[in-house]
Amino acid sequence: MKFAVVLSGCGVYDGAEIHEAMMTLLAIKRHGAACQMFAPDVMQHHVVNHLTGEIMNESRNVLTESARIARGKIKPLKEYRAENFDGIIFPGGFGVAKNLCSYAFDGPEMKIDKVVEKAIRETHEADKPIGALCIAPVLVTRILGSVEVTVGSEGDTAADIRTMGGTHKKTGNGEIVIDRKNKIVTTPCYMLDAEITDIEEGVSEAVKAIISLCK
Amino acid sequence: MKFAVVLSGCGVYDGAEIHEAMMTLLAIKRHGAACQMFAPDVMQHHVVNHLTGEIMNESRNVLTESARIARGKIKPLKEYRAENFDGIIFPGGFGVAKNLCSYAFDGPEMKIDKVVEKAIRETHEADKPIGALCIAPVLVTRILGSVEVTVGSEGDTAADIRTMGGTHKKTGNGEIVIDRKNKIVTTPCYMLDAEITDIEEGVSEAVKAIISLCK
Repeated sequence: MKFAVVLSGCGVYDGAEIHEAMMTLLAIKRHGAACQMFAPDVMQHHVVNHLTGEIMNESRNVLTESARIARGKIKPLKEYRAENFDGIIFPGGFGVAKNLCSYAFDGPEMKIDKVVEKAIRETHEADKPIGALCIAPVLVTRILGSVEVTVGSEGDTAADIRTMGGTHKKTGNGEIVIDRKNKIVTTPCYMLDAEITDIEEGVSEAVKAIISLCK
Repeated sequence: MKFAVVLSGCGVYDGAEIHEAMMTLLAIKRHGAACQMFAPDVMQHHVVNHLTGEIMNESRNVLTESARIARGKIKPLKEYRAENFDGIIFPGGFGVAKNLCSYAFDGPEMKIDKVVEKAIRETHEADKPIGALCIAPVLVTRILGSVEVTVGSEGDTAADIRTMGGTHKKTGNGEIVIDRKNKIVTTPCYMLDAEITDIEEGVSEAVKAIISLCK
């Protein structure tokens, strides 16, 4: 069994959330599956100094920075073909909402990277599972509409999920939501105040559920 | 119980090895301890494009980039005091050999960042354990001399350990070496051809041993 993992940079405030990405790789391997990492070959929306929170006068590429998490073993997302994988997983981080789509700025009226949209639609049409961690469910809901997902607690993001036609289920640390009809698995991760062990638990459960949906 | 974890940037080729750093945080939390991350507030030796391996015409700060792994919760290493912690752990990555010392360029004749050297000496003098993953044992051996460590297989790095007065023990994936006299725990991680589950196993064993040395 082999999964695609889509990264959105390297660092929670302008890229992929590193803890969530790493726990995804660990869970996939632990559950006996393989993975290939991908990222879109586009510039980051911006670069954030993770020490101060300030925007830096720099520009970085999403694929190049994602390669830090992947130790170089990563491909441009345009090379992804659903037929070559058993499913696709999106770890969270602001990179999802800034680089893969514009949710961080435009809310439910977001624009979506064309390559990202194609990857999600192709996987869904192939009836293969999609995992979306943390903030990533907003992206999947914008594309697929009436899906059932979680971003943890009720609040603005959950309201946006409903605005986009989705159903939101409240969850706590380590919990997951499975939309069996659409084969979508979500877990809140750092959308909630969480410890790294919570991330590990939630992502492990999500990956287990994704694998069970492949059978 | 609380441990200091010293990062050297964010990405294996010019900073801290992300997988090793993350498995360190996970293991510390899982074994019921807390941690505070630190990094020296210095510029990286260089910036490597992790997709191509080429050196980029950029400059980045070790503390600022390390903050990506730490989600912002990190302090300058000069604020580290051994008396406030039960031990100190150095994940690997080329950042250790390029930013914390110059081993990558100068071998056993390396120069060492003064703040890094002070942190290691102070911890050793306080009779508290030091964990060194992957390539980090070269740094500890250069400072403390006759210690017993592992960098995995025999080869150039192991020979350099001996040149600096240390004893090298060969290990495989997931194995650790404990120097009980000096309270130093080492494990090879990505010095060997390894999977993320090997890193998780070795680092977990190392953290367990470090905790046992605190008692």
